[in-house]
Amino acid sequence: MSTRIVITGGAGFLGTVLARRLLTAPVGLGGAAVEELGELVLVDLFPPPADLTADPRVRVITGDLATAPAELGEVDAIVHLAGVVSGAAEADFDLGMRTNLDGTRALLEHARSLADPPVLVFSSSLAVFGRDPALGPLGVVDDDTLPRPQSSYGIQKFIGEQLVTDYTRKGFVRGRSVRLMTVAVRPGKPNAAASSFLSGIIREPLAGIRAACPVPPDTPIALSSPRKTLDGLLRALEVDDAAWGSRTAMNLPALTTTPTEMAAALDRVAGAGTSDLIDWTDDPAVGAIVRSWPARMHTPRAAALGLTPEHTFDDIVRAYRDDLR
Amino acid sequence: MSTRIVITGGAGFLGTVLARRLLTAPVGLGGAAVEELGELVLVDLFPPPADLTADPRVRVITGDLATAPAELGEVDAIVHLAGVVSGAAEADFDLGMRTNLDGTRALLEHARSLADPPVLVFSSSLAVFGRDPALGPLGVVDDDTLPRPQSSYGIQKFIGEQLVTDYTRKGFVRGRSVRLMTVAVRPGKPNAAASSFLSGIIREPLAGIRAACPVPPDTPIALSSPRKTLDGLLRALEVDDAAWGSRTAMNLPALTTTPTEMAAALDRVAGAGTSDLIDWTDDPAVGAIVRSWPARMHTPRAAALGLTPEHTFDDIVRAYRDDLR
Repeated sequence: MSTRIVITGGAGFLGTVLARRLLTAPVGLGGAAVEELGELVLVDLFPPPADLTADPRVRVITGDLATAPAELGEVDAIVHLAGVVSGAAEADFDLGMRTNLDGTRALLEHARSLADPPVLVFSSSLAVFGRDPALGPLGVVDDDTLPRPQSSYGIQKFIGEQLVTDYTRKGFVRGRSVRLMTVAVRPGKPNAAASSFLSGIIREPLAGIRAACPVPPDTPIALSSPRKTLDGLLRALEVDDAAWGSRTAMNLPALTTTPTEMAAALDRVAGAGTSDLIDWTDDPAVGAIVRSWPARMHTPRAAALGLTPEHTFDDIVRAYRDDLR
Repeated sequence: MSTRIVITGGAGFLGTVLARRLLTAPVGLGGAAVEELGELVLVDLFPPPADLTADPRVRVITGDLATAPAELGEVDAIVHLAGVVSGAAEADFDLGMRTNLDGTRALLEHARSLADPPVLVFSSSLAVFGRDPALGPLGVVDDDTLPRPQSSYGIQKFIGEQLVTDYTRKGFVRGRSVRLMTVAVRPGKPNAAASSFLSGIIREPLAGIRAACPVPPDTPIALSSPRKTLDGLLRALEVDDAAWGSRTAMNLPALTTTPTEMAAALDRVAGAGTSDLIDWTDDPAVGAIVRSWPARMHTPRAAALGLTPEHTFDDIVRAYRDDLR
């Protein structure tokens, strides 16, 4: 038997990283023995990179999440990464609801219609946590912390978690929701996300380009590297139901650092003076958003599954530099 | 100016109690001065009692929540009580999703379409809390306890809370979600709810009829009386946004008691030997459901709004008996 795996958002950054990993090394799904990958379906609004489309095992569905499920057919596992990002979901409420909520529900309904309940990994987000304006600072977020989302994106992800939980309890899918941390260092270009600078202040100086840090240098920040994020998604895909445990979403581990520490790590890895290319500007609007995010995570549940944060930010810079080469 | 108030589920037990109260004593909405009630719209699948339909201020909409909003028009406040109850939402997943989720969303979309954001009181439920089979007992539930719903009803209510929170943050409504406790003593007949006996073991003996208690006599149980539940709904309707505080749902207070204490209270209020009409049967299936509910609530947030539980179960029996007369 070979496996059929779907990745929604399969043309995005994490989707392509995961797709390449699955095409290289097969996995066992939900506690089953490792099996050959028969088909990898990549669903996204735009086509994935050429190296992926060139693989004969890859099938591409270009389209909207709410309509794509009809073309999926029988599958063994779904990794649901697709979604409207936080800034866009905030700017266009109806778009966010349609994609992040209705799209997720359409995908779950497709999964429910299958002969065997597929393993379904849902990428939720640390954005489910937010600083409630009527309450104090967030403090350390642990496995039992009550999410109080302060954005439409966070609300929609939290609702997605609830749907996955109940579809799992009912036996329609074998769901596992993981809350992804801010991922740095991302390759590519700056984008409109408030977190964009957390990749930019490393990526651009390494390329000899200036980059702005819009928050005070001592701002505490929780981060995960791309490879640790991938570890979390793969672990959720592979473990059996008993080891996964509670149907409630699981926080992935994060390293707590500051821009000051990030700059020092950059200089240690890439040479003294590299961080001189960082402009220490101050944008209070960005600062307010960043301070509303959790900065310190305590993740014993993830640890019990062998998932750990990076030890130091030096490791993250080194991994990014090695990937570039 | 007079006010226009909508009650969904306006023909149900709590809906009619609330309707009678609003028709008798006008309220100020969301911190405004007390104003005359101009129109009370009761939405339900079936018509309300004759005393309500006879009031010229009452307008009745008989129909489904998903279609009713079109007939509502401009309103100042909505108390959203309607929903498919827990047993029915569990037996018919699609019905629960359609009424409890899509119906709530349709109502919120109607509210969003109005010229002024209405005050919207959403009745959530202690059913958002449940004993996670992968974790230990629930313990004391407080304002920060993470809900881990273990039923489709609980999930749908919890999703409703999230929608109300975000529609409020966006300024579409002025939402306040209150989590109602098990209400006892309810008048009327036994129903299929697992909690039905908590009213039955008082109501039936008071009427000289035998009633079964299907759980061990020392099972701890969190209850609220109809009048304390009404207090919670009215407070949510009346307070201003600042006093309401966090947009996260608020637990209403509950009295923790046991069937043993309930029977003793019954004898004290109605005369020794009344509780001899209780049959102490044992139904492990009902017991398992009842033990999955929170039994002890700590509700400082509700207390800050002046909301308290009944002091003793004797008070609850006395209030029910007085209402009967």
